[in-house]
This record gives sequence, C-alpha cells and structure tokens, in this order.
Amino acid sequence: MVSGFSLFDSKAKLNRKARSIGGKVPYRARHFRSLQNFDIGGAAERLPEPLIKAFGVLKKAASIVNVGYGMDPKVGEAIGKAADEVISGKLIGEFPLVVYQTGSGTQSNMNANEVISNRAIEILGGERGSKKPVHPNDHVNMSQSSNDTFPTAMHVAAVTEIHRSLLPAITELRDALDAKAKEFEHIIKIGRTHLQDATPLTLGQEFSGYVQQLTNGIERIKDTLPRLSLLAQGGTAVGTGLNTKKGFDVKVAAEISKLTGIEFKTAPNKFEALASHDALVEAHGALNTVACSLMKIANDIRYLGSGPRCGLGELQLPENEPGSSIMPGKVNPTQCEAMTMVCAQVIGNQTVVSIAGSNGQFELNVFKPVIIKNVLQSIRLLADASRSFTKNCVVGIQANEKRIHTLLHESLMLATILNSHLGYDNVAKCAKKAHKEGTTLKEATVSLGFLTPEEFDDKVRPELMLHPDEA
Amino acid sequence: MVSGFSLFDSKAKLNRKARSIGGKVPYRARHFRSLQNFDIGGAAERLPEPLIKAFGVLKKAASIVNVGYGMDPKVGEAIGKAADEVISGKLIGEFPLVVYQTGSGTQSNMNANEVISNRAIEILGGERGSKKPVHPNDHVNMSQSSNDTFPTAMHVAAVTEIHRSLLPAITELRDALDAKAKEFEHIIKIGRTHLQDATPLTLGQEFSGYVQQLTNGIERIKDTLPRLSLLAQGGTAVGTGLNTKKGFDVKVAAEISKLTGIEFKTAPNKFEALASHDALVEAHGALNTVACSLMKIANDIRYLGSGPRCGLGELQLPENEPGSSIMPGKVNPTQCEAMTMVCAQVIGNQTVVSIAGSNGQFELNVFKPVIIKNVLQSIRLLADASRSFTKNCVVGIQANEKRIHTLLHESLMLATILNSHLGYDNVAKCAKKAHKEGTTLKEATVSLGFLTPEEFDDKVRPELMLHPDEA
Amino acid sequence: MVSGFSLFDSKAKLNRKARSIGGKVPYRARHFRSLQNFDIGGAAERLPEPLIKAFGVLKKAASIVNVGYGMDPKVGEAIGKAADEVISGKLIGEFPLVVYQTGSGTQSNMNANEVISNRAIEILGGERGSKKPVHPNDHVNMSQSSNDTFPTAMHVAAVTEIHRSLLPAITELRDALDAKAKEFEHIIKIGRTHLQDATPLTLGQEFSGYVQQLTNGIERIKDTLPRLSLLAQGGTAVGTGLNTKKGFDVKVAAEISKLTGIEFKTAPNKFEALASHDALVEAHGALNTVACSLMKIANDIRYLGSGPRCGLGELQLPENEPGSSIMPGKVNPTQCEAMTMVCAQVIGNQTVVSIAGSNGQFELNVFKPVIIKNVLQSIRLLADASRSFTKNCVVGIQANEKRIHTLLHESLMLATILNSHLGYDNVAKCAKKAHKEGTTLKEATVSLGFLTPEEFDDKVRPELMLHPDEA
Amino acid sequence: MVSGFSLFDSKAKLNRKARSIGGKVPYRARHFRSLQNFDIGGAAERLPEPLIKAFGVLKKAASIVNVGYGMDPKVGEAIGKAADEVISGKLIGEFPLVVYQTGSGTQSNMNANEVISNRAIEILGGERGSKKPVHPNDHVNMSQSSNDTFPTAMHVAAVTEIHRSLLPAITELRDALDAKAKEFEHIIKIGRTHLQDATPLTLGQEFSGYVQQLTNGIERIKDTLPRLSLLAQGGTAVGTGLNTKKGFDVKVAAEISKLTGIEFKTAPNKFEALASHDALVEAHGALNTVACSLMKIANDIRYLGSGPRCGLGELQLPENEPGSSIMPGKVNPTQCEAMTMVCAQVIGNQTVVSIAGSNGQFELNVFKPVIIKNVLQSIRLLADASRSFTKNCVVGIQANEKRIHTLLHESLMLATILNSHLGYDNVAKCAKKAHKEGTTLKEATVSLGFLTPEEFDDKVRPELMLHPDEA
Repeated sequence: MVSGFSLFDSKAKLNRKARSIGGKVPYRARHFRSLQNFDIGGAAERLPEPLIKAFGVLKKAASIVNVGYGMDPKVGEAIGKAADEVISGKLIGEFPLVVYQTGSGTQSNMNANEVISNRAIEILGGERGSKKPVHPNDHVNMSQSSNDTFPTAMHVAAVTEIHRSLLPAITELRDALDAKAKEFEHIIKIGRTHLQDATPLTLGQEFSGYVQQLTNGIERIKDTLPRLSLLAQGGTAVGTGLNTKKGFDVKVAAEISKLTGIEFKTAPNKFEALASHDALVEAHGALNTVACSLMKIANDIRYLGSGPRCGLGELQLPENEPGSSIMPGKVNPTQCEAMTMVCAQVIGNQTVVSIAGSNGQFELNVFKPVIIKNVLQSIRLLADASRSFTKNCVVGIQANEKRIHTLLHESLMLATILNSHLGYDNVAKCAKKAHKEGTTLKEATVSLGFLTPEEFDDKVRPELMLHPDEA
Repeated sequence: MVSGFSLFDSKAKLNRKARSIGGKVPYRARHFRSLQNFDIGGAAERLPEPLIKAFGVLKKAASIVNVGYGMDPKVGEAIGKAADEVISGKLIGEFPLVVYQTGSGTQSNMNANEVISNRAIEILGGERGSKKPVHPNDHVNMSQSSNDTFPTAMHVAAVTEIHRSLLPAITELRDALDAKAKEFEHIIKIGRTHLQDATPLTLGQEFSGYVQQLTNGIERIKDTLPRLSLLAQGGTAVGTGLNTKKGFDVKVAAEISKLTGIEFKTAPNKFEALASHDALVEAHGALNTVACSLMKIANDIRYLGSGPRCGLGELQLPENEPGSSIMPGKVNPTQCEAMTMVCAQVIGNQTVVSIAGSNGQFELNVFKPVIIKNVLQSIRLLADASRSFTKNCVVGIQANEKRIHTLLHESLMLATILNSHLGYDNVAKCAKKAHKEGTTLKEATVSLGFLTPEEFDDKVRPELMLHPDEA
Repeated sequence: MVSGFSLFDSKAKLNRKARSIGGKVPYRARHFRSLQNFDIGGAAERLPEPLIKAFGVLKKAASIVNVGYGMDPKVGEAIGKAADEVISGKLIGEFPLVVYQTGSGTQSNMNANEVISNRAIEILGGERGSKKPVHPNDHVNMSQSSNDTFPTAMHVAAVTEIHRSLLPAITELRDALDAKAKEFEHIIKIGRTHLQDATPLTLGQEFSGYVQQLTNGIERIKDTLPRLSLLAQGGTAVGTGLNTKKGFDVKVAAEISKLTGIEFKTAPNKFEALASHDALVEAHGALNTVACSLMKIANDIRYLGSGPRCGLGELQLPENEPGSSIMPGKVNPTQCEAMTMVCAQVIGNQTVVSIAGSNGQFELNVFKPVIIKNVLQSIRLLADASRSFTKNCVVGIQANEKRIHTLLHESLMLATILNSHLGYDNVAKCAKKAHKEGTTLKEATVSLGFLTPEEFDDKVRPELMLHPDEA
Repeated sequence: MVSGFSLFDSKAKLNRKARSIGGKVPYRARHFRSLQNFDIGGAAERLPEPLIKAFGVLKKAASIVNVGYGMDPKVGEAIGKAADEVISGKLIGEFPLVVYQTGSGTQSNMNANEVISNRAIEILGGERGSKKPVHPNDHVNMSQSSNDTFPTAMHVAAVTEIHRSLLPAITELRDALDAKAKEFEHIIKIGRTHLQDATPLTLGQEFSGYVQQLTNGIERIKDTLPRLSLLAQGGTAVGTGLNTKKGFDVKVAAEISKLTGIEFKTAPNKFEALASHDALVEAHGALNTVACSLMKIANDIRYLGSGPRCGLGELQLPENEPGSSIMPGKVNPTQCEAMTMVCAQVIGNQTVVSIAGSNGQFELNVFKPVIIKNVLQSIRLLADASRSFTKNCVVGIQANEKRIHTLLHESLMLATILNSHLGYDNVAKCAKKAHKEGTTLKEATVSLGFLTPEEFDDKVRPELMLHPDEA
C-alpha cells in the first residue's frame, strides 16, 4: 500500500491518517469508507489477487472498445497502461478491500476505477485525485456498471486461473500418477475391498484408477467452461444494457479473449448473468468432484504407506521433513495430510457457493464477493496442493515390493484360482486349515496332500487373476 | 410385500413369521438377515425403486449376454422374463432392504439374484427356493459381482431417471416460464437491485432470466452424462474382471442401451468405476446447480406475488388451496414453499454425496447405497417439484399490470432518462423534491416548471430504457 | 389408508376415486387437494411418524386446556380419545401428506384436525364428515393456528425421540464400548499417529477415547434441550397470541409435559418461536457432532479389523452375514459401513437444516416440514444405527491378542524406552540396524552387543510407556 | 517477516535467499522447509493470529510449570518473556506457516519452539540459532509433543476469541436490537406470514424476536464452552502422557487459566482429546446456529427497508456509502449484504469442520490446522460483522411510521376484529368488496352500511390484536 497506510491499521488510526494527509487522499475516499464500514476479517479476507487482475483486463478491454465508440484515444491508451500495471500485480497494494462489503462488489469496481484513473492521470502527467484528464466514472467505467463489471471479472478470473494454474497442475499430477502406474504395472499385490483381502491386481492397475479419476476430473472442469466463459459485461445495472452501446458486450468479450488468449463470449441473457451465479456454482461442482477424487487418492496412498512395521507398508513415501533419528522409516504422510485438508476445505466451500449462489434477488445476486472468493480459493488450493503433492510425494513414491509380495502370498485369496483344479470343497478345506493354523495356503495345501510345493507354485499364479478370461 | 410380511414388523416378529412359514422362506434368508442386522430407518429408508428396476435391466442384459457365452437359453429367457417383472415394478414388494446396509450393496444384489431366480424357477415350473433350474449365483449373477453390479445399477438408474423424468420436467418448466416471458414482454416494470428500486425492465425480460437459468441447467445436466453413462459392469470384484469373460463388459453395456433406449458404454477403467463414484458426485453437482436456480426463481416469484395489499404485489399466483374466506386475495405461495424446501434438501444432499463419494478405500467405495439414494432423491424431488410448480403455479401466474404500472411511475428511477433533456443538476432537484414531499417525479418536475405534464409524458418513456443505445 | 386409497395412486386415479366415492369424502378434501397439489416424492417423503404422534399429544393437551377454558367436556374427552389413537400410531395411515407441501405445515395441522374430529365424532356416535358435534377448526384447533401448532409438534417430536430413542441408544453403545475398554485394558498395542507406528497404549485406552466421545455426545445433546423444550404454542398466527387466551400457552406446555413425562415450557418469545427454528438447527449441531464421533469410531474399528491376512488385523469383528466359505476369516465390516453411511447422511442433513433454518421471513419460517423431517431422520438413523452397531458389532468384537503382540514387538517404537539406559545415539544405532535389516529391535540390540536378550526383555517393557512419569 | 524474506516469494527465490544468508538461518530451517514443501495458498492461508498467540500462552504456562518440575528458572523466565512477545503479536511475522501443512500442526509447534527459544536466547544475551542456553525442544517443548500442544492451542485460541471478541460483539448487537425493540414498541404494523399480509403486531415485537434469537445464541455458544475449555496438554504423543510428568496436565491448565483469566481444565481423557475434535465441531455448531439467526435478521431488515418507492419501505436504513445524487432515498442495504455473506461462509465452514472433525484416525486427528482455521474464521467474521452491523446499521435504523401506518390500514387483515361485531359473513362481504374494488376496508364497510366511519374507527383498533384475550 502507498504512503504509510496499512490495512492492519485500526479504523481510528486510518481516520487519523486520512485526516493527516489532508487533500491528498480524496481520490481514495471510497476505499477508506469501505474499510471503515466493513472492518470485517482483516487482511486475510481481502479479495483475491486474480480478481483484481481480472479487473485490470476488463478495464483495459473496455477502454479499447470505448475508443472505438469515440473515447479520446490518449485517454484510452493511458487507461490501458494503468490497467496493465494492475494486471501485472504491481498495484495490488492499492486494492485493500475485503470480501465482506457490498454484495455487488461496487466498492471494488470503484476501487479499480479510481486506482486506474489516478495512475492513468499520472502517466499523462496530471495530478492524482484531480479526475482530469481521466475520470474514474466517465472514462474508466464508461458504458459499465458495478453490476456487470464485477461478475465479468469473476468469470475472467475463474476461467483464467483454471486455464493457467489448475488444469496444468492436475494434468501434472495425473501424468505423475500415470508414470507410477506404468512403473508399477508388473507388481502384483493383494486387492482390498471393504478393507478386507480380496483378489489380486497390480499396483499399476490400482494407480490407473487414480489416473482415470483425474483424467475425468480434467474433462469435468473443462465441461463447465462453456458457461463459465460467458460474460455479463454489457448488461449494466439491471441487465437491459441501459447506458451502454449496442455491440459493446460482444466487443468487450472479444477484447478480453485477445488479452487473455482464452475464448470468452458475451452472455446470451444478461438478466441471468447479473441475477444468478449458476455458472460458478456449476464450476465449483466440478472442483468439488476433483476434491473428492483427490481425497480418495491421498487417503489410499497414506494407508498404503502406513507403517513402517505395523501398517500396510506397501508403499514408501518420500521423507520430506526431518524424521525422528531414533525412529528410522517413520515417514509421516504430510503431503497427503495437506491434500486431504485442502479437499475438506473445497468440499465445504461448495456449501458456501451453493448458498450464496441460490440467494439472488430480482435483478441482482448480492453474494458476489463471497462466491468468487470461495471459487478462487478452491482453484488455488487444488492447484497448489496438486503441484505440492506431485513434487513432494507422488514422484518419489516407491513400491515396497518385498512387503507387497509377502502380503500377497500370505493371503488366502489366491485359493480361488485352485477351484478348477481341486474343486471348491477341497479348496475350502485348504483355506480353512491355513486360516485356523495361521499358515500359508501353500503350506496347508501341501500338508493336506492336494498338491506338491512345485505343483502349487505352478498353478497358483496370481498373474492369471488380473483380467477377464478369454471368451 | 408378500404373504403377511411387513417391513414394519419388529425383528422378533419377523423371526417368528419366518419360522412359522417354515420351509417356504429359506430362499429369502438373506433378506431376513439383512433386515435383522440392519434395522435402520424403516420403510422410509428402503432403496429407491429406480435402483431396483435398474437391477432388473442389468440382470436381463447380463442373461442375454451370458446366453451368448453359452448359458442355457431357456434359463436365460426365464431370467429375462422375471427381470421384466422387476422392471415393471410388479415385484417391488420383494425388495425391502434399506439404504444402511453393506456399503457395497451386496445384499441388494443378492436380493435381486434371489427374487429373479425364484421367479424364473416359477416361470419354468420349478419350486421356489430349490435353486433349480435357475441358480441365483450361478445363473442370475453369472460373470458378475456385487462390486460391479451395484455401481452399474446406480448409473443406469440415475441416467434413466434423468432422461425420462428430470429433463422433461425441467424442460416443461422452462417452456412454461418462456411462455410467460413472451406473455409479459410488453409489461414494463421497475427493476430491483440490492432490493432497491432500479432502472426498469420488462416483466418478460425478468422471466427470460429464469428461462436462461433452466436452459443452462439442462445443458449442465447433459454435460455430466458422458461420464455417468459409463458402466462398471465387467470389473467384477476388484476391477480386474476376474471370473468374467473378455468382451462381457462391452456387450452388457450394449444390451442395456438396447433395453433402455439410452446409450451406455463400458467404463474405460474398471478400477476407477468400483472405487470411486466421482461421476455421481459430478452429476449431483449439476443437480445442485439446478436447485440453486430454482431457489432463486421460486423466491423471486413469491416476493413478486407478496401482498395482497402490503407486499410487492406485481404477480398474482394461482390460488390452489382454499384461502381464508374472510381474507380475499391472500394466496400463500405454497408451490414456491414446496420448491424451496426441495432445493434446500438437494443442496444438503450434495454434502452427503460429496462426503460419501470422497471416502472410497482401495478397490471399493462402500458408501454406494447412500450415494445413489441421495442422487435419486434429488432427481425425483427436482422433477416432481418442477412439474408441480409448472402446473400449479407458473402456468397460472398473472401479472398485476395495474400495480406494476403504479409502482413504476411512483418510482424516481425514471428520472435518469431526463438527464439529457434537463441536465443532471435539474433532474436531481426534481428527484429530491419528489422524495422529500412524497410526490411523483412528474408532479415535482411539473411543479418546478421544468416540463409541462405533456412534455413529461412525452419524454419519460420507460420503453426507451430497456436496451443499449444504438451505437 | 382407508377404503382403497393409496398414496401410490396417480393423481388421475386419486381424482377418479375421490369422485367415485362422492359425498362421503368431503371431510378429507384437504388431504386430497394437498396430495394432488404436492405430488412430490411419493410415500418415502411422508412426514415422519413421530411428528404425527406429537400432533396427537398436542391436540389432546389443547383439548384438556380448552375444557378448562369452557369447551364442552364431552367434546374434549372425545378429542382426547381420538388423539390417543393418533399417539398410538393406529391412525397413521390417515396421515399421507408429504414433506414438500406448504412450508408452515398448514395442511398437516388441518389433517390432524380432521382426522381427530372425525374419529371423535365417531366415538360420540356422530357421522364422519358432519363436523358435528366435533368441529375440526372450532374444537380440535381451538385457540390454535397452524403457525404455532406445527412448530410445537416439531419440538415435541424431536425432544421425545431424543429422550426415548436416541439417548438410550447412544448410552447403550457407550456402555458397550466401555465394557470393551475394560475388557481390553491389559492389552498393550502399538499406537498410530499419522497412520505411522507410534508409542504404545493399551487397547483399553484406545477404546476409552471412544467412550469419552460418546459421553460427551450425550452431554452435547442434552445441553441443547433447554431451548428445544420451549414450545411455540400460544403464539397463534404471528406470535402475538391473537385469538387465544392468556395462560393458554403455559397450560398447554404443562399438559404436554404431563402427557409425555418430559418437561416442556412455553417459549418466552413467540415471535422467535414461529419465525426461526434456531433451536432445531442447534440441536442438529449436536447430532452432527455425534455423527462425527461415530464416523471416527466406526472407521477405526474397521481399519483395526482389516485383514484377515493383509490388514492391521488387531480386532476380530463378528461375522453377521454368510462369509465366503472358501475365504475363511474374511469378515466385511458391514456394521461399520452402515454406520458411516448414516454419519454421512447426518452431516449432510446439517446443511439442509441450516439452509432451511436461516430462511425464515418476517413472522414465519416456511421451511418447517423439511427441517423436522431432516432432524427426525438424523435422530432415528443415529439411534437405529447405534443399536445395530452395538448389538451386531461392538459386543462381539474380539481382540486378536497374538497379532497385537506381534505387531507391538515388531515395531521399533519401543526403542525410545532404552534412551535412558543406552543413550540416544546407541539406541538410534539399534533402530537403524533393525530397520535396515528388517529384524526386530531386540535382535539388533543384542547383535550390536548392547544388551543380552534377557536384559532387553527386562528393560523394554511397554507397560512402562502407558502413562506420565511420576513427578 | 524478518530481514527481507517474504512469504510471497517463490520457492526458488526463498531458496536463493536462504542460501544467500548463509549460516544465519539454520535456526529457521524448519520454517523454510515447511514453506517449500507446502507452497499452498500463500499468505492468505497463514494460520490465524489467535492460534499463534495461544501458542505463546501455552509455552509460557508450560515454562512456569516446568520450572516447578526443576527447569532452570532463568531459562523459564526468558521463555516467559519471549512468549509474552508472541502473545502481544510482536513476533507475528515470524510465523509464516500456512494451514495446509502437516495435519498435526507439527511444524507450527516447532515454529513456536524455535521463535521462542531464539528470542529467549537473545534476551539472555546468547546467539540466535545456538540452541543455548534455551533449547527449542529440551526447554520450550519440555514435557510436550506437537500432538498435545497444537490441540491445546486450538482450544485456548477458540475459547479466548469467543470470550473476548465474539460474545461481546453479539451482546452488543443484541442490546442494540433490544433498544430498537423498545423504541419501536408503540408502532403497530402489518404482520407477514408466507410473505402475505397477516394480523398485526408491533415493530417492537418483531424486533423482540431478533433479540430472543441472539439471547439464545449467546446461551448456545456458552453451553459448548464446558467441553471446549478442556485441554489436551499432558497427553503427549498418543494420549498416554509418556515423557511428561504426573500432574503436568492439571498444572498447565491452571496456569493457562491464570494467564488468560478464563477457566480451563485438563481433559479427562487425553486419547479423545488428540484423536477427535468433537468439541470444536460442537462449538462450530453453535456458531452455525448464530449464523442462521443473523441471516434471518439481516434478510428481514433489508426487505423491510426495501424501496424507497417500490418496496416494503417500513424501515429506513442508515446511508453509509455515497448514494446516487440523482436517486435520493435509494440506500443499498450493504451492511445486510456483508452480514449475509458472512453467514453463508460460516454455514459452509460447518461442512469443512464436520468433514475434518470426523476424519480422525487411531490416536490422532490430522486435520487440525484446517479445523482451527475455519473455527477462528467463523468466530472472527461473526464478531466483526456483528460489530459492523450494529454500528453501521442497527443503531441508525429508523421506522418509516407513515408508511407502516398506511400499509396497516390499507390491509384487509384488520377485518378479523369485526367478526364479533358484524358476524363472519358480513365481514367477509366487506373484505371481498374492498378487495374487488381496491378500496380500504373502512370504505367498503361504510359503503355497505354496516358501520359509520366513526363506528369503524372505534371498533377497528389494531392495538387490541397484539396479545391473547383475557382468559
């Protein structure tokens, strides 16, 4: 933040500071008022950076279109340059407003208008706060309303973060799991259903399920983008487009597409686009599903890695934190823990987004800031956690082949393969004897005289149990 | 239920009955045991009918495919006939099991196997309970496992209900709202943002937003079907397909497609299909979004219909229940109330489905029954409530044009149109005077001498405020 | 239901039936209308039985109080007898209405008035449907309104079910776990944190944690009762008590207390009691917490019982369903699965209840039916599942002492006890050697020459690791 | 943060910086490692300040107790002084770790140990990073484990924030509403049920419902404190208390009580206290209920304040933000919007806390950071929003008495009072005539000749409709 102001300041302090600075801060009057009137949650609750940057994109796009409609090109260009600084993150300190403000995000739109106009004024050699030659409302907000800019910025931010951050992160994790699936495709292990020993599969097959979950997850997210890429811009205050120009909506969407390199379109119905946020509820439904997938994957991996002596012990997870020097092999699955906490948060965020999204009233939904905050948080957490999980856990996972082999052959589930050789009743005898005496199936089968050890090894080949029979 | 049994009976009574019937009930032994061991929730918690019917579809499809793999065609045909009776709902009383049982739904698969095999035996002239010539496991469950049949039935039931019930119901509601949007397109009304008077729009435009929400909702639901139409069948116990035949999976999906007239495909990865239920979490995300849309629509309509004297009063809702004879015009928006209660339930079901869906373990997710129960409940409630809302509310909505006209012209928001004629400052004077004195804008403007009444009426035409300016 | 009507009938069929019965059904007109107008969800969505019974309690209490205010005692007595039949469940078939109706539950109050008045008429020898000598409104509903009876019935039903069903069921489960905690107090086992081997504790200590969770759970639920036992009765339509008598509220609460044997009081503020359902949201918060406790307990138990060969295997769960004859020892933890599904449902119901509870408007909350349905479902599911889990799982749990002993002594965590004898560095050497070579700590320590086997056994006594040091 | 480090730095940058600083940062090695390994969410996801401060309280209390058990008093005193600086917030920059780390919060406990030991070393004139004379583990963490310190800090933070911030804020709001209830007790207004006109009540009565909701809310929160005030400290790693001293637990709780001025007790069962977080789930259930109350209150107020011309218009809310100069009287209910967004967030946080709280495993719940983050966020948001709502909205609410009076007398609901004078049928005639012709009830009654205007005014006195009849 500029010149000695801090969001952490108490309201009284802010007032004092504002007074002390005298004539120099009127241009930030709205910020101060919002910070004073909505002293809720502090710095941790500021609107997320990608939303602020999306405002930069939008204001730049609007200025380009407005020049086409007759705005002074010099003004337009200055707005564009100032908006670029918002996009770059350079001016992020000028956006101190929190989520829990006006439900339309009006103050944040005004915040953007003021920051950009003042910076544009500066670029053009004018005096900050003079509103000349770049007026926050007449120029930066030209043909716009808070009611259409804020939801436009919401969609631009969400789509952009999904494209640039989330999809690559999930793809990276999917690919890392896929590499493991291939690395492990020869390792046959016991299956587990109901947590009980079941027929075998390969460790690669097990991991292939995770890969499929994420492959589907990527498709899920992408399938929500057609609606998430529709922009409210052009609806102005109530959706009619009053005070904007015919064609402004289509042109702004086209400019935003150019600036971001991602295709956006104008929403076919602006009333829907202002009064509901179904597209974000829907998109979060896909994020929620991915969270469910990741919860399953992370849980499996930490249970499979449990031990070192008294757990399942089939996987060895990389040791990232200093372990106990006295307790070798005790590796806490901390990446799985971070991931599952992220998933719990995202699943809960779904509830927030649904409640907020269902509560539009007439021409406007006034839960906009809390919706986009939760959506962007879920996107970021899933992306960051996926990257962290990939790098700090998945790529370093090793199979404990010895342990896997031991468990498989200690299990009695391999008995089923003997049905066709010995008949069901005899096989049952072997299994029961082994279970009762705590021996292996092989020992029981041999000691009952059904097979020699060699015959057992020849017939009980788990690799035959990994696929359907030839028809 | 058959022959004097009731799910409402106490366990002791059930035991007594079972004993009393002697040799006639052994074939239902598993049902009894499940009812005894899972005496949870009573009749209201039985697995939903569409799931039972989907088991009929699946068992019939499997029998057809199994005949192709060599099963006695006579047996196959009898299974098919018995399954048809399950599909028709005729045997629904034979499926008394509740949701809260084994998490894989094993007992329900066995339930289906036993009901169908016994009915098939009967059809073939055999003795119920004899397991001959149609064995519940060897024939009805041939090449199958609970672990792949139950999730297959889940997907078949959900997709079928979405196709046959939900999508038509939402489409019908969308169309009814669209008809109203067109009927109301000439009625100009005050807009409301933040619940405060805003610039005008037509009532038709307002309803067009609802139409768009549901048009999108239909797309949302459809976009989840590619994954929801993938079937687990063929994965058997752990996903490897052990004990089934190569090609069985593809063929069963093809038969199910034929039987239902809806395209299903075999899941590309059976490990994913058994151990996760992401596709149902995702699909419920779309249902959840539609619930958010409907909550908004129903809320708007009841507020717009509030009154008769002391509310907004812009809409007149049909009077379905006997009103107070002494209080004419007091029509409680009961259809909106039923609808919003449905929406609350569906949004909460999302939490259930997400928790359950995220808790798969290794090769199996054992929250299957509670997942499908919630998904099918959401589908049914949304479908039924949409139909009820359409028929008992939407088609009968009338605009109170007089009230709408009065409110519009009492409002001060029309003042904005005078800016270009009188200048901002003069317009502000008029509006302030009207606000202070509680008069209309017209009265204030005329009394201040800015315009004659005729000039006012000529210039203040709200129909000019309904769209963007010509560029 | 009476005389050939079925809730499962289509609406057309209902209409036909209604017409065919001609003059004989006017007294049930409201039911038919409600069934027709709210054809949502079918029989599974009927209002729960405890609510209907609570209406019986309320109507009886009101009739007693009304006699005190001058109602004909003969009429009062007949109402009381008819209400008793509602309380007993005998007339449950007469209450076919579903949850998704008017949000105030008006139709259900009228349903109660009509069923009771008609039955009272019958008792007095009159003609059903004649409204004489017992009028549904003038007598059964005397001094009442749907707006205060329905919330009163909600509280009476919830409190009664908690007292009679839920608290005993949880107490029973707590006691069963406590018996196990005592039975297992001598069994020392490996601890697990982060799923990794940790310092030991007794199996009894582990179970004592579960016991404490439920002891707290009982307190939690009880602590919500002071507010849940406050009744709305006496507020009539908007909370003012118009059309009732001074003192009616206090007296009805007193009568209900007598009839149920549970203390109820009149709500100190009837506006709050009609317009909000905070007390039910709060009470469900306690149910939700108990669900979280039970989820943890059931998860622990199924993981500790995982195996038989390839899991943790520390517990043996009772085998309730027929296991695979060929796979001895494979006992699916089906009671845990049912329980965790119940918990998922209850946690999701919290979302429903919160959304519905937060949406009161002005003088009335019109989400009443969906709130009480979810609360009563959570109560019943938790109670039933607790009883089922106790009887079919907990009492039959056996410790696999041999396995527990083996794991404990295979672990390296016992090494920490040697620190004071050998010094940290030497202990680390032993542990590392054991880890590297896959041997026990004892073997490593002996082979490194630090201790003899006898010394090791003398010093490494896990029973010294179960409590704090003497100060 | 100290010396040029920023949490916003990329991991690569952090590494570079760490290397560049050379030997000076080893003491912060764990922080760096955690920041690198858990690069999830950035600064907005740092663990909340009250938790950090609670660590200060705990470490100080532990040092006092440890001196009692023999720790060097000079060391103890230095730890206490350093801890005081943590408590004061002065060292908050030294605690950069995010929520999504190890699920036990181990790194944050180490963070506290390291920051305090280094500051204590400094106080004693030693060299930071030397671990002498104050060792992070041996002294600051003496007799403790992450597994008992983190949950202790969770409870201390939550209870402290509830006592110091939340309860005063809600009480303040309750009192402000109560003052309004008294101010408005003479204003009779139309009641609204189902959003439809209903019998009258006073505006004071309406507000008294809100007061009761918050009075109950305060009780609700307090009733969870008996369990939330129980501390895990003394359980060490798995709950047995290994490596701590008998009595340590009780003494630490006593010291913490002294330091905070709030009563804390040691948890009766440490296994429960480490492995579950039921007390926090329960406490959040109370927060969730308060959120539901506040949602209702804020919604009512914004609807009652809707207008200025085309809404209900019964309340005038204070104008905090600059309104449109051209649109006088249009005051957006922004405080209500901020409040309802907060409520949506808190209701969603319940889902997070429930999921996380239900997922303990064996001896430890590893969702600790995400649980406490959500609980503290809910506490802070509710407290801040309550204060903001009180100051910026409630105290400035004015009744629009003229509008209220007009609506009341335009309504037809007053007709009910004439029943005893004119008989039901005649009253119905009057009401129907008024409804049909759009006149007032008075006009209709007079024109039908039932009453003179004077008689009407004499009999139709809404003040008689505000309470029950005398018995």
